[in-house]
Amino acid sequence: MSKVSFLGAGSWGTALAVMLAKHGHDVIVWSKVEAEVNMLKENREHKDRLPGVKLPDSIVITSNLKEALTDRDLVVFSVASPFVRSVAKEVSALIPEGQKIVNVAKGIEETTLSTLRDILVEEIPQADVSVLSGPSHAEEVAIAMPTTVVVGSASKATAIYIQEIFMNERFRVYISPDIIGIELGGSVKNVIALAAGACDGLGCGDNTKAALITRGIAEITRLGTAMGAKKETMGGLSGIGDLIVTCTSEHSRNHNAGYLIGKGYSVEDALTEVKQVVEGVYSAKAVLKLAQKYQVSMPIVETICHVLFDGMKAVDAITILLTRDKCMEYPELGWLE
Amino acid sequence: MSKVSFLGAGSWGTALAVMLAKHGHDVIVWSKVEAEVNMLKENREHKDRLPGVKLPDSIVITSNLKEALTDRDLVVFSVASPFVRSVAKEVSALIPEGQKIVNVAKGIEETTLSTLRDILVEEIPQADVSVLSGPSHAEEVAIAMPTTVVVGSASKATAIYIQEIFMNERFRVYISPDIIGIELGGSVKNVIALAAGACDGLGCGDNTKAALITRGIAEITRLGTAMGAKKETMGGLSGIGDLIVTCTSEHSRNHNAGYLIGKGYSVEDALTEVKQVVEGVYSAKAVLKLAQKYQVSMPIVETICHVLFDGMKAVDAITILLTRDKCMEYPELGWLE
Repeated sequence: MSKVSFLGAGSWGTALAVMLAKHGHDVIVWSKVEAEVNMLKENREHKDRLPGVKLPDSIVITSNLKEALTDRDLVVFSVASPFVRSVAKEVSALIPEGQKIVNVAKGIEETTLSTLRDILVEEIPQADVSVLSGPSHAEEVAIAMPTTVVVGSASKATAIYIQEIFMNERFRVYISPDIIGIELGGSVKNVIALAAGACDGLGCGDNTKAALITRGIAEITRLGTAMGAKKETMGGLSGIGDLIVTCTSEHSRNHNAGYLIGKGYSVEDALTEVKQVVEGVYSAKAVLKLAQKYQVSMPIVETICHVLFDGMKAVDAITILLTRDKCMEYPELGWLE
Repeated sequence: MSKVSFLGAGSWGTALAVMLAKHGHDVIVWSKVEAEVNMLKENREHKDRLPGVKLPDSIVITSNLKEALTDRDLVVFSVASPFVRSVAKEVSALIPEGQKIVNVAKGIEETTLSTLRDILVEEIPQADVSVLSGPSHAEEVAIAMPTTVVVGSASKATAIYIQEIFMNERFRVYISPDIIGIELGGSVKNVIALAAGACDGLGCGDNTKAALITRGIAEITRLGTAMGAKKETMGGLSGIGDLIVTCTSEHSRNHNAGYLIGKGYSVEDALTEVKQVVEGVYSAKAVLKLAQKYQVSMPIVETICHVLFDGMKAVDAITILLTRDKCMEYPELGWLE
């Protein structure tokens, strides 16, 4: 039994908190939003983000940071990406030396091109910061659908520590040293998911979408390896696994926004219709900047940016991607000649 | 404009023949089955295998091997895997030295553990044999849904030759020297698709299926690299791409058979219900033998074999896969310590 606090009560944080509480852990959920805290205390359910999932009585809900951060075995950062830096600044003084933190959110800061863990390490240098990622819709984890994720940590001891806390018979946790690889997969996937949604909206078939996912992970792998990630990780749960689930599931907001764009909606109208934050639209620019910085070719991401920001039609984007020059699947695998 | 003959008029061969004919190539389709030849000549449509798709008038249908094999730029082997060796034996004497052949079928011969290209090279040693694979349901290619595949050849010149023939604005062809990698992905995917179908039949969610696909490609990659394939290929169109389309599409017979098994049907009843050949059931034993021969761990394939041949229940299989020992995602990526 471990003492675990969650910072942020979105759908993912809430789902993980419910799972840990059901497995006997001492769980505190903190939110900065007073109305959310009151709603959770009153209803024992997050009616907006995770409707139908009851919070076990043992979960303590609080808006008091000191309560949430005193004497905890693990602090889970489950704050939406745009707020990670501000929350990290706010909590840093309350975090003890060596505190184990695991970030479960995904994204890249557009201004600095930092990953979310980079931000946490920068703002809370005394902490030991890990990441957790994988194909894991919150809605399914909350009802104990079999799910697998990977935890990346700077030391094997910390990775095993976090694995022990999260792993149960319905939630399988692998461990890995490749932190940057794990983070990149989760951050770039939403951009590709927009394209996959657009494919569906245009009425393309399963062949097209599988090709897009496959060539999408090839782009993510090129970027990742240029940034020091391992190829294996891109082919793993936090890479292709998360990309598959995001591109094929109806739970994905990014896919849904892309679908509407494929159907002919303007980008503005699609975002209005989907209502929640569509992470891929924000990540697209950051990923394109990273591609330029590391000088890697990312034709899908580039084309999506044209659709999102330069008024290119989705149907023209597909044609452009399919009619590029003939080439090798992996130029690095040459013939001996 | 090239002269191309197809040996075998299944759904995939027919779809590719239609596509090439529509792009101006001189196409002959040969079938050993006289009734099939007559049906195709009469209806100009393969009512059983590809209903609704009209054969262009220019396609010549024949049961005369000499007509099909005289003076052709390319011969496409589109024979179902169990018949590849017998057809290869039958045609070998009519194939000229240096004839370019491309095999588009998938499978492993259980008795010899040979790939289909191995068989063709053995039986028609005078030919230059390539392979073509990727996420490509025939039903979608036949109606010009955007599709991408990869061609693997022993020489770059041959790969480019075949790429030139097949590539058009709706069918993108990559080339690669990794023939064995391309073949293995297509052969093992059907086994994993059975498991993915079973997941769906059991009522598991998108998280579970994405995990299965991801860990499935990890198994295929372990086997492939032990057999000399490149990791990149396993992460490409003929590997993860084809696996995604087979595991997520309603067109897949393997997925459908697995679904029924997940729903509680006996293996026999599921196969009876699906009617057509369920390749994965036949491949499963061959793949397990390959895993044993090359001493690689393939827990998903092993567990599927228990379900298919030893009476294990699908629901128990999922539990076994999820509750294995805690481990690293990729043991070869160790921490420096």
